[in-house]
Amino acid sequence: MNNITKPNLIFKDDLLTGENIDRLTRKLKDLGDIFNDKAAFAQMDGETVVYDVESSFPVAHGTEGGLFYGITYIHPGKVGQEYFMTKGHFHEIRNRGEYYCTLEGEGMLLLMDENGNTRAEKMIPGSIHYIPGNTAHRTANVGEQILSFSAFWPSDAGHDYGTISEKGFSEILIEQEGQPVLVPNIKQ
Amino acid sequence: MNNITKPNLIFKDDLLTGENIDRLTRKLKDLGDIFNDKAAFAQMDGETVVYDVESSFPVAHGTEGGLFYGITYIHPGKVGQEYFMTKGHFHEIRNRGEYYCTLEGEGMLLLMDENGNTRAEKMIPGSIHYIPGNTAHRTANVGEQILSFSAFWPSDAGHDYGTISEKGFSEILIEQEGQPVLVPNIKQ
Repeated sequence: MNNITKPNLIFKDDLLTGENIDRLTRKLKDLGDIFNDKAAFAQMDGETVVYDVESSFPVAHGTEGGLFYGITYIHPGKVGQEYFMTKGHFHEIRNRGEYYCTLEGEGMLLLMDENGNTRAEKMIPGSIHYIPGNTAHRTANVGEQILSFSAFWPSDAGHDYGTISEKGFSEILIEQEGQPVLVPNIKQ
Repeated sequence: MNNITKPNLIFKDDLLTGENIDRLTRKLKDLGDIFNDKAAFAQMDGETVVYDVESSFPVAHGTEGGLFYGITYIHPGKVGQEYFMTKGHFHEIRNRGEYYCTLEGEGMLLLMDENGNTRAEKMIPGSIHYIPGNTAHRTANVGEQILSFSAFWPSDAGHDYGTISEKGFSEILIEQEGQPVLVPNIKQ
Protein backbone atom coordinates (compact mmCIF):
# COMPACT_ATOMS: atom_id res chain seq x y z
CA MET A 1 0.00 0.00 0.00
CA ASN A 2 2.83 2.35 -0.90
CA ASN A 3 0.81 5.10 -2.48
CA ILE A 4 -2.19 5.09 -0.16
CA THR A 5 -2.20 8.00 2.25
CA LYS A 6 -4.49 9.52 4.82
CA PRO A 7 -6.60 12.48 3.73
CA ASN A 8 -4.81 15.80 3.90
CA LEU A 9 -7.58 17.58 5.76
CA ILE A 10 -10.33 16.46 8.06
CA PHE A 11 -13.56 18.39 8.08
CA LYS A 12 -13.75 21.02 10.77
CA ASP A 13 -12.62 19.42 14.05
CA ASP A 14 -9.23 18.38 12.78
CA LEU A 15 -8.72 21.05 10.19
CA LEU A 16 -5.80 22.21 12.29
CA THR A 17 -3.88 19.05 11.48
CA GLY A 18 -3.85 19.84 7.78
CA GLU A 19 -0.97 21.41 5.96
CA ASN A 20 -0.94 24.90 4.49
CA ILE A 21 -3.53 26.22 6.93
CA ASP A 22 -3.75 29.99 7.15
CA ARG A 23 -5.42 31.51 10.22
CA LEU A 24 -6.95 34.96 10.35
CA THR A 25 -8.71 36.67 13.26
CA ARG A 26 -10.79 39.83 12.93
CA LYS A 27 -11.43 41.81 16.09
CA LEU A 28 -13.83 44.70 16.59
CA LYS A 29 -10.93 47.16 16.28
CA ASP A 30 -10.30 45.82 12.75
CA LEU A 31 -13.91 46.39 11.71
CA GLY A 32 -14.60 50.00 12.59
CA ASP A 33 -15.76 50.77 9.07
CA ILE A 34 -18.46 48.11 8.73
CA PHE A 35 -20.82 48.88 11.62
CA ASN A 36 -23.17 51.86 11.33
CA ASP A 37 -23.75 52.61 15.01
CA LYS A 38 -20.51 54.42 15.84
CA ALA A 39 -21.67 55.33 19.38
CA ALA A 40 -22.39 51.70 20.27
CA PHE A 41 -19.11 50.67 18.65
CA ALA A 42 -17.12 53.18 20.72
CA GLN A 43 -18.38 51.66 23.96
CA MET A 44 -17.25 48.12 23.10
CA ASP A 45 -13.88 46.43 23.70
CA GLY A 46 -11.86 46.59 20.49
CA GLU A 47 -10.16 43.31 21.40
CA THR A 48 -13.44 41.40 21.10
CA VAL A 49 -13.06 38.69 18.45
CA VAL A 50 -15.78 38.94 15.81
CA TYR A 51 -14.66 36.10 13.56
CA ASP A 52 -11.88 33.67 12.69
CA VAL A 53 -11.09 32.14 9.31
CA GLU A 54 -9.03 28.98 8.73
CA SER A 55 -8.12 28.44 5.11
CA SER A 56 -6.30 25.85 3.06
CA PHE A 57 -4.28 26.98 0.05
CA PRO A 58 -3.14 23.85 -1.81
CA VAL A 59 -1.85 25.94 -4.73
CA ALA A 60 -0.36 29.42 -5.00
CA HIS A 61 -2.64 32.45 -4.80
CA GLY A 62 -3.56 33.53 -8.31
CA THR A 63 -3.34 30.03 -9.80
CA GLU A 64 -5.85 29.69 -12.63
CA GLY A 65 -8.10 26.67 -12.33
CA GLY A 66 -7.27 25.85 -8.70
CA LEU A 67 -9.57 26.07 -5.70
CA PHE A 68 -9.24 27.13 -2.07
CA TYR A 69 -11.12 25.94 0.99
CA GLY A 70 -11.80 27.62 4.32
CA ILE A 71 -13.99 27.67 7.41
CA THR A 72 -15.25 30.90 8.95
CA TYR A 73 -16.38 31.07 12.59
CA ILE A 74 -18.44 34.16 13.49
CA HIS A 75 -19.02 34.77 17.17
CA PRO A 76 -22.48 35.80 18.41
CA GLY A 77 -22.88 39.47 19.22
CA LYS A 78 -24.15 42.83 18.02
CA VAL A 79 -22.98 46.40 17.64
CA GLY A 80 -26.13 48.31 18.47
CA GLN A 81 -28.81 46.55 16.43
CA GLU A 82 -26.35 45.22 13.87
CA TYR A 83 -25.21 41.61 14.08
CA PHE A 84 -21.55 40.57 14.17
CA MET A 85 -20.58 40.02 10.55
CA THR A 86 -17.70 39.66 8.11
CA LYS A 87 -16.11 42.57 6.26
CA GLY A 88 -17.70 41.54 2.99
CA HIS A 89 -16.07 41.71 -0.44
CA PHE A 90 -16.33 41.37 -4.17
CA HIS A 91 -13.80 39.09 -5.83
CA GLU A 92 -10.95 40.92 -7.47
CA ILE A 93 -11.64 38.95 -10.64
CA ARG A 94 -15.31 39.88 -10.60
CA ASN A 95 -16.82 36.86 -12.32
CA ARG A 96 -15.49 34.31 -9.81
CA GLY A 97 -18.22 32.44 -7.88
CA GLU A 98 -18.09 30.66 -4.51
CA TYR A 99 -19.97 28.05 -2.44
CA TYR A 100 -20.80 28.32 1.26
CA CYS A 101 -21.96 25.34 3.34
CA THR A 102 -23.34 26.06 6.79
CA LEU A 103 -21.90 23.83 9.52
CA GLU A 104 -23.45 25.15 12.74
CA GLY A 105 -25.46 28.07 14.03
CA GLU A 106 -27.84 30.51 12.38
CA GLY A 107 -26.81 33.13 9.90
CA MET A 108 -27.68 35.32 6.99
CA LEU A 109 -25.69 35.54 3.78
CA LEU A 110 -25.97 39.04 2.30
CA LEU A 111 -25.50 39.26 -1.45
CA MET A 112 -25.28 42.48 -3.43
CA ASP A 113 -24.94 42.73 -7.20
CA GLU A 114 -22.98 45.45 -8.94
CA ASN A 115 -26.14 47.54 -9.35
CA GLY A 116 -26.52 47.70 -5.58
CA ASN A 117 -29.39 45.24 -5.21
CA THR A 118 -29.05 43.45 -1.87
CA ARG A 119 -30.73 40.21 -0.84
CA ALA A 120 -30.12 37.68 1.92
CA GLU A 121 -30.29 33.91 2.28
CA LYS A 122 -30.93 32.17 5.60
CA MET A 123 -28.06 29.97 6.73
CA ILE A 124 -28.94 26.90 8.75
CA PRO A 125 -26.85 23.78 9.45
CA GLY A 126 -26.57 21.89 6.18
CA SER A 127 -27.62 24.73 3.89
CA ILE A 128 -25.59 25.25 0.73
CA HIS A 129 -25.34 28.65 -0.91
CA TYR A 130 -24.07 29.57 -4.35
CA ILE A 131 -22.55 33.04 -4.59
CA PRO A 132 -22.64 34.04 -8.25
CA GLY A 133 -19.89 36.04 -9.89
CA ASN A 134 -20.05 39.84 -9.76
CA THR A 135 -21.71 39.65 -6.34
CA ALA A 136 -20.46 41.07 -3.05
CA HIS A 137 -20.97 38.73 -0.11
CA ARG A 138 -21.01 39.15 3.65
CA THR A 139 -22.17 36.83 6.43
CA ALA A 140 -23.86 37.75 9.71
CA ASN A 141 -24.39 35.62 12.81
CA VAL A 142 -28.05 36.08 13.83
CA GLY A 143 -28.07 33.34 16.50
CA GLU A 144 -26.89 32.87 20.07
CA GLN A 145 -23.99 30.51 19.29
CA ILE A 146 -21.06 30.36 16.88
CA LEU A 147 -21.99 30.43 13.20
CA SER A 148 -19.56 28.39 11.12
CA PHE A 149 -19.53 27.62 7.44
CA SER A 150 -17.13 26.16 4.90
CA ALA A 151 -16.31 27.96 1.65
CA PHE A 152 -14.90 26.85 -1.72
CA TRP A 153 -13.61 29.48 -4.15
CA PRO A 154 -11.26 29.79 -7.15
CA SER A 155 -7.62 30.32 -6.26
CA ASP A 156 -7.36 33.24 -8.69
CA ALA A 157 -10.48 35.06 -7.38
CA GLY A 158 -8.70 37.46 -5.03
CA HIS A 159 -10.51 39.80 -2.63
CA ASP A 160 -11.65 43.38 -3.17
CA TYR A 161 -12.54 44.69 0.30
CA GLY A 162 -12.21 48.34 -0.65
CA THR A 163 -15.52 48.86 -2.39
CA ILE A 164 -17.53 47.50 0.54
CA SER A 165 -15.32 49.15 3.16
CA GLU A 166 -16.06 52.51 1.54
CA LYS A 167 -19.77 52.26 0.73
CA GLY A 168 -21.06 49.19 2.56
CA PHE A 169 -23.98 47.21 1.22
CA SER A 170 -27.11 49.04 0.03
CA GLU A 171 -29.02 47.39 2.88
CA ILE A 172 -27.94 46.42 6.37
CA LEU A 173 -29.15 43.55 8.53
CA ILE A 174 -30.41 44.59 11.94
CA GLU A 175 -32.41 43.05 14.74
CA GLN A 176 -35.95 44.38 15.09
CA GLU A 177 -38.33 42.78 17.60
CA GLY A 178 -35.96 39.83 17.89
CA GLN A 179 -35.86 39.16 14.15
CA PRO A 180 -33.22 39.95 11.51
CA VAL A 181 -34.50 42.39 8.91
CA LEU A 182 -32.91 44.14 5.95
CA VAL A 183 -33.25 47.92 5.99
CA PRO A 184 -31.77 50.61 3.72
CA ASN A 185 -28.24 51.63 4.62
CA ILE A 186 -28.46 55.24 5.75
CA LYS A 187 -24.70 55.51 5.35
CA GLN A 188 -25.08 55.40 1.58
CA MET B 1 -38.11 40.91 5.06
CA ASN B 2 -38.72 41.17 1.33
CA ASN B 3 -35.34 40.06 0.16
CA ILE B 4 -34.64 37.33 2.69
CA THR B 5 -35.07 33.85 1.26
CA LYS B 6 -34.50 30.27 2.30
CA PRO B 7 -31.28 28.63 1.12
CA ASN B 8 -31.45 27.24 -2.37
CA LEU B 9 -30.04 23.86 -1.44
CA ILE B 10 -29.97 21.83 1.74
CA PHE B 11 -27.08 19.53 2.35
CA LYS B 12 -27.68 15.99 1.23
CA ASP B 13 -31.07 14.92 2.66
CA ASP B 14 -33.03 17.68 1.02
CA LEU B 15 -30.85 18.17 -2.00
CA LEU B 16 -33.78 16.98 -4.06
CA THR B 17 -35.75 20.08 -3.15
CA GLY B 18 -33.21 22.33 -4.82
CA GLU B 19 -33.59 23.78 -8.26
CA ASN B 20 -31.47 22.86 -11.26
CA ILE B 21 -30.65 19.41 -9.94
CA ASP B 22 -29.30 16.98 -12.50
CA ARG B 23 -29.47 13.26 -11.72
CA LEU B 24 -27.27 10.61 -13.29
CA THR B 25 -27.22 6.86 -12.63
CA ARG B 26 -24.42 4.55 -13.76
CA LYS B 27 -25.24 0.85 -13.93
CA LEU B 28 -22.84 -2.04 -14.43
CA LYS B 29 -23.83 -2.22 -18.10
CA ASP B 30 -22.57 1.39 -18.52
CA LEU B 31 -19.19 0.52 -17.00
CA GLY B 32 -17.98 -2.46 -19.00
CA ASP B 33 -14.72 -0.75 -19.85
CA ILE B 34 -13.54 0.11 -16.33
CA PHE B 35 -13.37 -3.29 -14.61
CA ASN B 36 -10.50 -5.64 -15.43
CA ASP B 37 -12.10 -8.99 -14.57
CA LYS B 38 -14.27 -9.51 -17.66
CA ALA B 39 -15.29 -13.03 -16.61
CA ALA B 40 -16.62 -11.84 -13.25
CA PHE B 41 -18.31 -8.88 -14.98
CA ALA B 42 -20.10 -11.16 -17.44
CA GLN B 43 -21.74 -13.10 -14.62
CA MET B 44 -23.26 -10.02 -12.97
CA ASP B 45 -26.60 -8.28 -13.63
CA GLY B 46 -25.98 -5.31 -15.91
CA GLU B 47 -28.89 -3.46 -14.29
CA THR B 48 -27.05 -3.29 -10.95
CA VAL B 49 -26.64 0.35 -9.94
CA VAL B 50 -23.01 1.18 -9.21
CA TYR B 51 -23.41 4.89 -8.46
CA ASP B 52 -25.69 7.91 -8.65
CA VAL B 53 -24.70 11.54 -8.97
CA GLU B 54 -26.89 14.52 -8.09
CA SER B 55 -25.49 17.83 -9.28
CA SER B 56 -26.44 21.48 -9.09
CA PHE B 57 -25.59 23.73 -12.02
CA PRO B 58 -26.36 27.31 -10.96
CA VAL B 59 -24.73 28.71 -14.11
CA ALA B 60 -24.37 27.41 -17.66
CA HIS B 61 -21.83 24.69 -18.44
CA GLY B 62 -18.66 26.32 -19.67
CA THR B 63 -19.12 29.52 -17.66
CA GLU B 64 -15.73 30.90 -16.66
CA GLY B 65 -15.40 31.65 -12.96
CA GLY B 66 -18.49 29.74 -11.86
CA LEU B 67 -18.64 26.60 -9.74
CA PHE B 68 -20.73 23.44 -9.69
CA TYR B 69 -21.71 21.23 -6.77
CA GLY B 70 -22.71 17.58 -6.64
CA ILE B 71 -23.03 14.52 -4.44
CA THR B 72 -21.97 11.06 -5.60
CA TYR B 73 -23.36 7.91 -3.99
CA ILE B 74 -21.37 4.73 -4.73
CA HIS B 75 -23.02 1.46 -3.76
CA PRO B 76 -20.98 -1.25 -2.04
CA GLY B 77 -19.92 -4.11 -4.26
CA LYS B 78 -17.11 -5.65 -6.30
CA VAL B 79 -16.45 -7.03 -9.74
CA GLY B 80 -14.06 -9.86 -8.96
CA GLN B 81 -11.53 -8.28 -6.61
CA GLU B 82 -12.14 -4.75 -7.87
CA TYR B 83 -14.35 -2.41 -5.86
CA PHE B 84 -17.35 -0.59 -7.34
CA MET B 85 -16.00 2.74 -8.55
CA THR B 86 -16.64 5.74 -10.76
CA LYS B 87 -15.62 5.97 -14.42
CA GLY B 88 -12.83 8.42 -13.61
CA HIS B 89 -11.81 11.38 -15.71
CA PHE B 90 -9.44 14.22 -16.38
CA HIS B 91 -10.99 17.65 -16.72
CA GLU B 92 -11.35 18.80 -20.29
CA ILE B 93 -9.60 22.03 -19.33
CA ARG B 94 -6.71 20.17 -17.74
CA ASN B 95 -5.67 22.67 -15.08
CA ARG B 96 -9.04 22.75 -13.31
CA GLY B 97 -8.96 21.47 -9.70
CA GLU B 98 -11.75 20.08 -7.52
CA TYR B 99 -12.62 19.41 -3.86
CA TYR B 100 -14.22 16.24 -2.49
CA CYS B 101 -15.73 16.05 1.01
CA THR B 102 -16.64 12.61 2.32
CA LEU B 103 -20.11 12.43 3.86
CA GLU B 104 -20.55 8.75 4.76
CA GLY B 105 -18.91 5.40 4.24
CA GLU B 106 -15.35 4.36 3.43
CA GLY B 107 -13.61 5.00 0.16
CA MET B 108 -10.45 5.57 -1.76
CA LEU B 109 -9.77 8.49 -4.05
CA LEU B 110 -7.45 7.44 -6.87
CA LEU B 111 -5.39 10.22 -8.39
CA MET B 112 -3.18 9.88 -11.46
CA ASP B 113 -1.03 12.62 -12.92
CA GLU B 114 -0.38 13.01 -16.65
CA ASN B 115 2.84 10.99 -16.35
CA GLY B 116 0.84 8.01 -15.15
CA ASN B 117 1.78 8.15 -11.47
CA THR B 118 -1.14 6.85 -9.41
CA ARG B 119 -1.74 7.37 -5.70
CA ALA B 120 -4.77 7.06 -3.42
CA GLU B 121 -6.19 8.93 -0.45
CA LYS B 122 -8.40 7.27 2.16
CA MET B 123 -11.88 8.73 2.33
CA ILE B 124 -13.61 8.73 5.71
CA PRO B 125 -16.59 10.77 6.93
CA GLY B 126 -15.44 14.37 7.19
CA SER B 127 -12.30 14.02 5.09
CA ILE B 128 -11.58 16.75 2.56
CA HIS B 129 -9.56 16.05 -0.56
CA TYR B 130 -8.00 18.49 -3.01
CA ILE B 131 -7.73 17.18 -6.55
CA PRO B 132 -5.05 19.27 -8.27
CA GLY B 133 -5.29 20.27 -11.90
CA ASN B 134 -3.91 17.91 -14.55
CA THR B 135 -4.91 14.93 -12.41
CA ALA B 136 -7.32 12.12 -13.30
CA HIS B 137 -9.60 11.14 -10.42
CA ARG B 138 -11.73 8.13 -9.62
CA THR B 139 -13.45 7.04 -6.41
CA ALA B 140 -13.97 3.50 -5.12
CA ASN B 141 -16.24 2.29 -2.33
CA VAL B 142 -14.14 -0.01 -0.13
CA GLY B 143 -16.72 -0.38 2.65
CA GLU B 144 -19.93 -2.30 3.30
CA GLN B 145 -22.32 0.64 3.03
CA ILE B 146 -22.96 3.54 0.64
CA LEU B 147 -20.00 5.86 0.11
CA SER B 148 -21.16 9.42 -0.48
CA PHE B 149 -19.18 12.58 -0.99
CA SER B 150 -19.81 16.12 -2.13
CA ALA B 151 -17.76 17.75 -4.87
CA PHE B 152 -17.05 21.35 -5.89
CA TRP B 153 -15.53 22.08 -9.31
CA PRO B 154 -15.24 24.92 -11.84
CA SER B 155 -18.18 25.25 -14.22
CA ASP B 156 -15.84 25.42 -17.22
CA ALA B 157 -13.80 22.31 -16.25
CA GLY B 158 -15.66 19.81 -18.44
CA HIS B 159 -15.03 16.04 -18.36
CA ASP B 160 -12.63 13.97 -20.44
CA TYR B 161 -13.69 10.35 -19.86
CA GLY B 162 -12.07 9.05 -23.04
CA THR B 163 -8.47 8.86 -21.87
CA ILE B 164 -9.34 6.79 -18.80
CA SER B 165 -11.93 4.70 -20.62
CA GLU B 166 -9.23 3.66 -23.09
CA LYS B 167 -6.21 3.10 -20.86
CA GLY B 168 -7.53 3.08 -17.28
CA PHE B 169 -5.33 4.18 -14.41
CA SER B 170 -1.75 2.89 -14.17
CA GLU B 171 -2.72 1.08 -10.97
CA ILE B 172 -5.98 -0.52 -9.91
CA LEU B 173 -7.46 -0.86 -6.46
CA ILE B 174 -8.32 -4.40 -5.47
CA GLU B 175 -9.19 -6.27 -2.31
CA GLN B 176 -6.43 -8.55 -1.00
CA GLU B 177 -6.86 -10.29 2.35
CA GLY B 178 -9.74 -7.96 3.15
CA GLN B 179 -7.74 -4.79 2.51
CA PRO B 180 -7.71 -2.37 -0.44
CA VAL B 181 -4.34 -2.34 -2.20
CA LEU B 182 -3.02 -0.63 -5.31
CA VAL B 183 -1.49 -3.00 -7.87
CA PRO B 184 -0.18 -2.38 -11.40
CA ASN B 185 -2.86 -2.39 -14.07
CA ILE B 186 -2.12 -5.37 -16.27
CA LYS B 187 -4.43 -3.90 -18.93
CA GLN B 188 -1.87 -1.20 -19.67
